[in-house]
Amino acid sequence: MPETPLDLTLDAPALTAWLVDFPSVSGTEKPLADAVEQALSALPHLTVDRYGNNIVARTNLGRAERVILAGHLDTVPIADNVPSRLDEDGMLWGCGSCDMKSGVAVQLRIAATVPEPNRDLTFVFYDNEEVAADLNGLGKVVEAHPDWIKGDFAVVLESSDLEIEGGCQGTLRVLLKTKGERAHSARGWMGSNAIHSAAPILAKLAAYEPRWPVIEGLEYREGLNAVGIEGGEAKNVIPDSCTVTVNFRYAPDRSEEDALAHVREVFADCDIDEFIIDDHSGAAMPGLSHPAAKAFAEAVGGTPRPKFGWTDVARFGSLGIPAVNYGPGNPLLAHKRDERVQISLISDCESRLHAWLTS
Amino acid sequence: MPETPLDLTLDAPALTAWLVDFPSVSGTEKPLADAVEQALSALPHLTVDRYGNNIVARTNLGRAERVILAGHLDTVPIADNVPSRLDEDGMLWGCGSCDMKSGVAVQLRIAATVPEPNRDLTFVFYDNEEVAADLNGLGKVVEAHPDWIKGDFAVVLESSDLEIEGGCQGTLRVLLKTKGERAHSARGWMGSNAIHSAAPILAKLAAYEPRWPVIEGLEYREGLNAVGIEGGEAKNVIPDSCTVTVNFRYAPDRSEEDALAHVREVFADCDIDEFIIDDHSGAAMPGLSHPAAKAFAEAVGGTPRPKFGWTDVARFGSLGIPAVNYGPGNPLLAHKRDERVQISLISDCESRLHAWLTS
Repeated sequence: MPETPLDLTLDAPALTAWLVDFPSVSGTEKPLADAVEQALSALPHLTVDRYGNNIVARTNLGRAERVILAGHLDTVPIADNVPSRLDEDGMLWGCGSCDMKSGVAVQLRIAATVPEPNRDLTFVFYDNEEVAADLNGLGKVVEAHPDWIKGDFAVVLESSDLEIEGGCQGTLRVLLKTKGERAHSARGWMGSNAIHSAAPILAKLAAYEPRWPVIEGLEYREGLNAVGIEGGEAKNVIPDSCTVTVNFRYAPDRSEEDALAHVREVFADCDIDEFIIDDHSGAAMPGLSHPAAKAFAEAVGGTPRPKFGWTDVARFGSLGIPAVNYGPGNPLLAHKRDERVQISLISDCESRLHAWLTS
Repeated sequence: MPETPLDLTLDAPALTAWLVDFPSVSGTEKPLADAVEQALSALPHLTVDRYGNNIVARTNLGRAERVILAGHLDTVPIADNVPSRLDEDGMLWGCGSCDMKSGVAVQLRIAATVPEPNRDLTFVFYDNEEVAADLNGLGKVVEAHPDWIKGDFAVVLESSDLEIEGGCQGTLRVLLKTKGERAHSARGWMGSNAIHSAAPILAKLAAYEPRWPVIEGLEYREGLNAVGIEGGEAKNVIPDSCTVTVNFRYAPDRSEEDALAHVREVFADCDIDEFIIDDHSGAAMPGLSHPAAKAFAEAVGGTPRPKFGWTDVARFGSLGIPAVNYGPGNPLLAHKRDERVQISLISDCESRLHAWLTS
């Protein structure tokens, strides 16, 4: 635990180190939320609201556009990697350094140093992003205070190697069940084998040709995969039930309804006895054609790329707010014991956002 | 527990009731084996041997043929169905009444009442038939004293509705494993899906046309069935392993080697990564063309039928001794709480065997 209070005059790398040294594993974010609320409340240009351990701070300058900068306060469990450590190559090591306290540090720096941005700003700091979707603090705020989360464009400062990751793919999980009739396997003809009845399902999956559509210049990659299969009661029994769990990852040119209809159609002639929707989170368009997003892309540079995994970007998408991921750090290092971030990237991130919001 | 000792002058139904009232769940057969040994040892025309809780009694009259009458002493666990109860329809209820204390009663009656059979007789009473194959008392005796189990023909007195059930089908269980490469399901193209790779296996199973060959006049029914399938690590991971458990039940015109070769051939072009033999018990020919078996079939009458499940008949088969199941009681009632046997069938069984062995 740092001995000093949260000091927004620190530079972004030092602020990141302070945040890493202040543990905030999912479910234990309150002290950090308190510190963030206190530090932001001292800034006269911001209105600060709180719901649970979620802090929302806003400028109210009457600008033509409003931009949301969002980041989660929580981390996965600490794995012997706190306190932070800065090595001689300028690499800052520690739990949350990459996912996403470096991003939160940039948010805090912008909040502190850009009192008169060219676009109105909404800063969201939320809890429980690393755990179940129904605990997610951003989702809770949207539900309880929808008016707090308004804007023309959102940047989620999750690590993305300082590249713009646009939109996000949807994910639909369904259970496909086939039924049969139990019998002793010595008298197989007296029963009906539910595992054999799943053969057409696996054949469809094996033959499936996924689309890789280009949307607003980004190439998305769909995929339809079995992520589980289960059947059989005993070693000498013809099984009367088999379940294939299928995950469809789909590009943001499909609505949730389209995605579901597509999966139903793929398996339409497979004689499935039960089709159960297990989980569904819609996709989000990259929204890069929106003027605010375009201006952002021009200001920060680089080549936007698609986001394959599902992130809170989609939550903004579902609110009709175009959103991108953009933050320091390599996303592949998230959740790892050797999680780390190049501190020069944190400063770069800050200065690019600063330039965009003050030009 | 009966208050009287084992009395071989009782008629077969009364003897069955006595045996049912004398609990002998697998693993606790010793007191009953003691009683059987003591009763048989009092008969001067028999030589009695014992190995563990297995009793073997033989005539030694120098006849041209020797016939084995075999039965197990143990039962499945009692389910509130002991002591026995005889109802007004002549049905005897109780654990083991059908499987197979009625058969054991017939064995004991023949042992006691046919001192000079037309064929030499070997009576085998064994333990642990209802549990794991490697505990089976008949197997133990064969291993330790192969000379005790010699003969030209064997009758296992398991319930068969007093119909001759000839031979027995073999059973082979194999595990068919496919491998893949794990990846996050949001980036499915970076992995390889082991469940999809199992599609050709299920297709083969679904399309398989089993043989129903007629052997020595009996129609056997082969079957190739998945009895289990398992794959998938997590809901968002492309699985790197899938296992299909397949059970092949095969007719006695196939040797164990043939059966295995056939299964390998069925799945030859399925790109299986591992083919594991999980369990294998060979088939037994009905042996009904053997003179001793023919004479038996003529004496007891009825139309022989094939045995689909695996029984100790196959153990005799593997010793080169043709064998059949033949006993009172409905085999579908075995192991049931409402297990029961029509007592007239017990007496019929005794008198038919008596006729065969004294004509």
